[in-house]
Amino acid sequence: MHNGFHIERLGAAEISSPINLGTEPGDLLADFTPDDARVLAEVDLEHLRSHLRGNEDPESMELAGPRERIYFDPSKLTAGIVTCGGLCPGLNNVIRGLTMTLHHGYRVKRILGFRYGYKGLTPDATHQPIELTPDAVKDIHGRGGTVLGSSRGPQDAGVIVENLERLGVRLLFTVGGDGTFRGALKLHQEIARRGADIAVVAVPKTIDNDIPHVDRTFGFQTAVSKAAEAIMAAYYEAQSAENGIGLVKLMGRHAGFIAANAALAARIANLVLVPELPFDLDGRGGLFAYLEDRFAKRKSTVIVVAEGAGQRHLELAGGKDASGNVKLGDIGVFIKQAIADHFKGKAELTLKYIDPSYIIRSAPAGSNDAVFCGYLAQNAAHAGMSGRTGMAVGRSHGKFTHIPLERLVESSKKIDPEGSLWISVLESTGQPFYMTERPPKDLSRQSLIPQG
Amino acid sequence: MHNGFHIERLGAAEISSPINLGTEPGDLLADFTPDDARVLAEVDLEHLRSHLRGNEDPESMELAGPRERIYFDPSKLTAGIVTCGGLCPGLNNVIRGLTMTLHHGYRVKRILGFRYGYKGLTPDATHQPIELTPDAVKDIHGRGGTVLGSSRGPQDAGVIVENLERLGVRLLFTVGGDGTFRGALKLHQEIARRGADIAVVAVPKTIDNDIPHVDRTFGFQTAVSKAAEAIMAAYYEAQSAENGIGLVKLMGRHAGFIAANAALAARIANLVLVPELPFDLDGRGGLFAYLEDRFAKRKSTVIVVAEGAGQRHLELAGGKDASGNVKLGDIGVFIKQAIADHFKGKAELTLKYIDPSYIIRSAPAGSNDAVFCGYLAQNAAHAGMSGRTGMAVGRSHGKFTHIPLERLVESSKKIDPEGSLWISVLESTGQPFYMTERPPKDLSRQSLIPQG
Amino acid sequence: MHNGFHIERLGAAEISSPINLGTEPGDLLADFTPDDARVLAEVDLEHLRSHLRGNEDPESMELAGPRERIYFDPSKLTAGIVTCGGLCPGLNNVIRGLTMTLHHGYRVKRILGFRYGYKGLTPDATHQPIELTPDAVKDIHGRGGTVLGSSRGPQDAGVIVENLERLGVRLLFTVGGDGTFRGALKLHQEIARRGADIAVVAVPKTIDNDIPHVDRTFGFQTAVSKAAEAIMAAYYEAQSAENGIGLVKLMGRHAGFIAANAALAARIANLVLVPELPFDLDGRGGLFAYLEDRFAKRKSTVIVVAEGAGQRHLELAGGKDASGNVKLGDIGVFIKQAIADHFKGKAELTLKYIDPSYIIRSAPAGSNDAVFCGYLAQNAAHAGMSGRTGMAVGRSHGKFTHIPLERLVESSKKIDPEGSLWISVLESTGQPFYMTERPPKDLSRQSLIPQG
Amino acid sequence: MHNGFHIERLGAAEISSPINLGTEPGDLLADFTPDDARVLAEVDLEHLRSHLRGNEDPESMELAGPRERIYFDPSKLTAGIVTCGGLCPGLNNVIRGLTMTLHHGYRVKRILGFRYGYKGLTPDATHQPIELTPDAVKDIHGRGGTVLGSSRGPQDAGVIVENLERLGVRLLFTVGGDGTFRGALKLHQEIARRGADIAVVAVPKTIDNDIPHVDRTFGFQTAVSKAAEAIMAAYYEAQSAENGIGLVKLMGRHAGFIAANAALAARIANLVLVPELPFDLDGRGGLFAYLEDRFAKRKSTVIVVAEGAGQRHLELAGGKDASGNVKLGDIGVFIKQAIADHFKGKAELTLKYIDPSYIIRSAPAGSNDAVFCGYLAQNAAHAGMSGRTGMAVGRSHGKFTHIPLERLVESSKKIDPEGSLWISVLESTGQPFYMTERPPKDLSRQSLIPQG
Repeated sequence: MHNGFHIERLGAAEISSPINLGTEPGDLLADFTPDDARVLAEVDLEHLRSHLRGNEDPESMELAGPRERIYFDPSKLTAGIVTCGGLCPGLNNVIRGLTMTLHHGYRVKRILGFRYGYKGLTPDATHQPIELTPDAVKDIHGRGGTVLGSSRGPQDAGVIVENLERLGVRLLFTVGGDGTFRGALKLHQEIARRGADIAVVAVPKTIDNDIPHVDRTFGFQTAVSKAAEAIMAAYYEAQSAENGIGLVKLMGRHAGFIAANAALAARIANLVLVPELPFDLDGRGGLFAYLEDRFAKRKSTVIVVAEGAGQRHLELAGGKDASGNVKLGDIGVFIKQAIADHFKGKAELTLKYIDPSYIIRSAPAGSNDAVFCGYLAQNAAHAGMSGRTGMAVGRSHGKFTHIPLERLVESSKKIDPEGSLWISVLESTGQPFYMTERPPKDLSRQSLIPQG
Repeated sequence: MHNGFHIERLGAAEISSPINLGTEPGDLLADFTPDDARVLAEVDLEHLRSHLRGNEDPESMELAGPRERIYFDPSKLTAGIVTCGGLCPGLNNVIRGLTMTLHHGYRVKRILGFRYGYKGLTPDATHQPIELTPDAVKDIHGRGGTVLGSSRGPQDAGVIVENLERLGVRLLFTVGGDGTFRGALKLHQEIARRGADIAVVAVPKTIDNDIPHVDRTFGFQTAVSKAAEAIMAAYYEAQSAENGIGLVKLMGRHAGFIAANAALAARIANLVLVPELPFDLDGRGGLFAYLEDRFAKRKSTVIVVAEGAGQRHLELAGGKDASGNVKLGDIGVFIKQAIADHFKGKAELTLKYIDPSYIIRSAPAGSNDAVFCGYLAQNAAHAGMSGRTGMAVGRSHGKFTHIPLERLVESSKKIDPEGSLWISVLESTGQPFYMTERPPKDLSRQSLIPQG
Repeated sequence: MHNGFHIERLGAAEISSPINLGTEPGDLLADFTPDDARVLAEVDLEHLRSHLRGNEDPESMELAGPRERIYFDPSKLTAGIVTCGGLCPGLNNVIRGLTMTLHHGYRVKRILGFRYGYKGLTPDATHQPIELTPDAVKDIHGRGGTVLGSSRGPQDAGVIVENLERLGVRLLFTVGGDGTFRGALKLHQEIARRGADIAVVAVPKTIDNDIPHVDRTFGFQTAVSKAAEAIMAAYYEAQSAENGIGLVKLMGRHAGFIAANAALAARIANLVLVPELPFDLDGRGGLFAYLEDRFAKRKSTVIVVAEGAGQRHLELAGGKDASGNVKLGDIGVFIKQAIADHFKGKAELTLKYIDPSYIIRSAPAGSNDAVFCGYLAQNAAHAGMSGRTGMAVGRSHGKFTHIPLERLVESSKKIDPEGSLWISVLESTGQPFYMTERPPKDLSRQSLIPQG
Repeated sequence: MHNGFHIERLGAAEISSPINLGTEPGDLLADFTPDDARVLAEVDLEHLRSHLRGNEDPESMELAGPRERIYFDPSKLTAGIVTCGGLCPGLNNVIRGLTMTLHHGYRVKRILGFRYGYKGLTPDATHQPIELTPDAVKDIHGRGGTVLGSSRGPQDAGVIVENLERLGVRLLFTVGGDGTFRGALKLHQEIARRGADIAVVAVPKTIDNDIPHVDRTFGFQTAVSKAAEAIMAAYYEAQSAENGIGLVKLMGRHAGFIAANAALAARIANLVLVPELPFDLDGRGGLFAYLEDRFAKRKSTVIVVAEGAGQRHLELAGGKDASGNVKLGDIGVFIKQAIADHFKGKAELTLKYIDPSYIIRSAPAGSNDAVFCGYLAQNAAHAGMSGRTGMAVGRSHGKFTHIPLERLVESSKKIDPEGSLWISVLESTGQPFYMTERPPKDLSRQSLIPQG
């Protein structure tokens, strides 16, 4: 029973795949992936035993890969690709990979690239879809952004399905994040309601790496790499001034993965603030006291803050100004100002604030993400051709898998403040466990590193 | 029964770790890793079921991480670090990470850096060990190579153990590859034979990523990234000449992981030759026929060859010249010459040969490897402080683990020619499955991509 | 008569330089620079003729380089180095180069590095000067910022001179920009007034490249290179959205050299706004009309704005809010807001604003600047050792020269709107000559490129 | 009388340039370059005086730039572009720049890109010329190599001229080095002989930067930057081994500019060997004695050798093996082997040899070269449109100029062993002035840096 990760299919796959692969292990010929191959969702031995004690099968996911029999007849198929939401390194690699596998691997008749997000899937689109061919995409993977364009926001599912039917698109690839999954899921449900013969396959895109059931999303490693460069800039700024502070705001609305990993890459951050852990400004355990300590020791300070950290402070600050609907501001700008206000007249400090977000997200994919995007695109194409629908491709414990869209929208992945990533951050930065007045167990201002 | 991955310990861990961590989940305080936490060695569901049907526990590995109780008294401990074998991006990050965790985390009394490999562990060392302190290592992670120096070749285990005892070193970290594991294993066995109280913990280093039971080794991703740049150079050279060939030789003595992944990163290689798959030069399915085809179609060609590919040709070539001991040459130079000889008078071609090996292996770690090295070093330090010995740290299915040295020397990891990495290479390059005259099933010159 | 560029000296240079150089051309032995070698200040033939017609000698500058006879006895000399003002790529290279030449070339007894700008030269400095040795500086050139620290603002010249005398510093190198020159000039004058025996030699630092009589300043090319990356980010952002605008603010308070050159490097900017040329927002020739045109043609737009451009708009905007002292804002933020306000309800546009200033200025020197900084530092050391004072080293028409401090503070270099740099920008961007309502000759909205 | 740099013209320029430029200084409108504007060829004051004493005008060159009146009617013109010889960073930038200025600036009817060098200009070309349009070239500047392809070797001038006439090409741009100049000069002479109405304008390309009368050639700075990376790799290799030697061979057949500048950029080379200065292997002043010294002091060594250095050794070595025609080898490989042979049995050393030539020359242009290529291409287009012929564009003392092809082939630029570049190298490396047994003045083994 693996219903938790059950993948729907449009119908029986009765067509032989045109891809030249084998089925017998040991003949040195690369093989199709068996239709029922699955991998475990959890690798913890204790977790497995608890399942077995309860006579349950452990949760597992379908393994991604090329199938021997496919659902769509490539010679008659029109496929579509759309990219949605904010930029992320690797979008063009995914577009290129999908096009190459559909065209060269399956000889799909026609591949349409819809322009500027879901809006481009509607009849109101101001830009017509473009035809994607190997020639059109062969050089795009060195470019940042998306050659199809993108936009935010949902569109009416019924309108899109009608438009897809009108255009004869029977296999749609959506590349996007949280909002895009929700949109894709609605499309999928609308298609099912109408009994339309259209498959929807998502390639998850979130630069924040916060998608559940997925090890890693494309663009994340490139983002970490670029973010680490910005942290180095903050470090050099901080080091070059008396009471120098370098403050870097990084992406991470709900999860601080970029901030934490970039700090681990640069290895010189002193404080990482993430959405998963609250922090105070005032008081014995707060940010100001922390900085006062460092100034007293003549140390410069590099602070990395994820955009979703400390939202409570923004709400409070926001609440003071406007009654009614609070418009949240920017936590980086807020902290910069709060520090300046607090130390005014107390200490001469030099704070340099760096917000590299657009530089990071528009970067071309690094080599590692390029490889990764290739796998995702190839596997998404294989899944779609096999008639699978309402799903996304992902990677779990190093294996490429299929995940139902429902599972992607039910939660988001967060840093475990008690797990190994955060321990590594605490070791590297030497920062206090808690930056709050009254932490559990009176741990305020203590850090993982024992204080001399 | 997890004996397959059983880790030895020097004795009971009876000292409280000085690191400030908790043990209760849910208190937002980062936790020690329980001493008996384990993760599965295989994630395939079918594989698991076969174990369960046989009433066997599936194989599992100890989870790495800081332990609540440690074996060594930090205030009395002298630890040592040695780096061996060829350069690899990240060596300095590992040295830095070990030093930082031992010093800041555990307050270890003294950390010695032995010079120039195992030779530096002997009394004959021409260079005395240097004392490693946070100040000495804080800026080394931006540098390539190893600040300790390295060398190849084993040394007498007895001599080393005596020397370590003389110097009072009770915890030794060896950073190196295959030969280093064998040396570390011999040290470990010699220590056991003598009943010496010295722990040996290895950090696996192989730029080729071919260590068994380990997902990934440090330096590999940086190497792939630099290798992809060399492939781009070959591409521009090939494109800029009539009948242009760009030939890049990459590391990979026994496994073609760098070649395969770099080709996937650059996305413009036409042919990847790896040790795992033989290839012919002559004949219908061979390299020359392949190139003739491309010349006929006016296409330039980018060939990526791993250093261990096609050794058969070198043996044959070598055999002709010298009876007795055959001295193998360089497969890149060999192919370059073989192509020049074959096409002499037949086609005017321009072949540019690039061997970027030293540029790749001496590169500073990229950001992703920097993060990875940090984890490895921290976990190696934790393992060593807990009294574990005869083991290495690794990563399996995304989790950091402990692996007995015996398991690391029993085999090496190779590309599965029937698995997803190679399928991705075949899709990306469009190269023939087999470059041999008489392949199984008469597959010669067919490729995964159906030919128009 | 070259009094315009006359360099003062502390006294006769009577000591033989310890540097091993020759004086005879043709013996293959590198030579000292003759004390009276000079290069022309202008290379234009017509300019030269006008001088000659007037029987005037053309203006010329002293050639920099090692002199056969020096003024200071290295064995008794204490030299000092101070870095002032904002960060600039190459500061550490200059510190390293000065130290290396003084120590290795001249065997100067002691070299002090003063901390955090001119403040560090006073007795009130919170940080004592550090001793600079080859070991202390050998690895600093890979780092951004300045290892000495920096600060803005002048200090009392008398206080500094007394402190230098107290410390026995007789040769001071100041690395800084406009304000630093003024400070150095005051020091020089104060030293002369007191008859103190201290030489002051400046290494000009301005990331903006706007120093008169100097071809190029260090850090500028690195800045252009990093700025071009930010422009590419803006380009990818603009391309990926409907009516997309990428807006990049770059350094350039009085001169737009970075903006212009970075646009020429990236080659995809559509509009470059610099302090040297005014622009309107409204009206037929203004920015809004320009953007409306582009939206009508479905073109995305990349705008590069130097920080000193359009200050008139800020004054006007500032004037509206506050009577009395107008606090000028940020032209990038201003334009971003002005565009958003203007198009509200008219067109849906996506504007991404990038301010990469701190990332640019804190970058380590690129290879070309590294070479350049080496020359500057070596030549500054040679000039100082020869007893020259009240001067800076520079480069004019490719030759390294000496320039009196008076000449550096009398003006600043600007883009010639009628010269070749700006023509190159106009050609590359296709932007209108004038973005104003009533330009000379009714050239509004015309561009160098003839319109179809 | 500036006959030395006299530029020929096809005829009177009687057509108004379509480019919108002004002629009056001070109107803020960018100006055409006056037809007779000239800049001095030498900036040395003494040099100028010697001319003036002899009542000679100093040598001067025509200033490059757009002319108010042009020779060719753009609406009827077919222009051609050809790239020849070895790769060099920036080739595509030049192709792009020429195309953009000819198309957008002048509205030239047709621009042909000839394939694979001079061979593509003949009727025997295996590839037809391609039409160059803004769309075709707009993204090529991020790519290395040349999109037109290249080849070495001359072709019959008469055949080419006939073919150009057949194709109606009246303005030919040749991008190439020494051999290409000779070919272009022959073409120019053949055209004159036939009275054909074809202009030939060269853009000088030599990665070695050894073209006379030209400050700097495109691609050189990018090459230096990439070369410096290779030197760093050699440094890390050398540092990581006992008696470690890192040996890097760089381009520079007749001049060591890349080697010298890359050494100055990396700042860690110990020895730079260039064609301009001979060196011994054996004897008191030779390479082996130098290395023995360093081994004795336990120092690692980084050697940078230009490909044209030490050719005498290759001749000698070559002479021993073969009577008759000596085939010269590779100086890098030769030195590597010579060191290994010499120290066999004497010292255990580790030598790593790096030849990054293809990686360097195929690199895309760095930002500084991108700007520079833009100027060269724009000025070449302006020169050609004005009817100038038999010339190249260059830069002298920072100004873009016109140079007759005759002046480019008469000599090549070399490092002045007595000048500032070499002094900077001697200071940075601390290497001996002479590496020969019997140097002039018994300077053997002395270095610029006085020995302790």
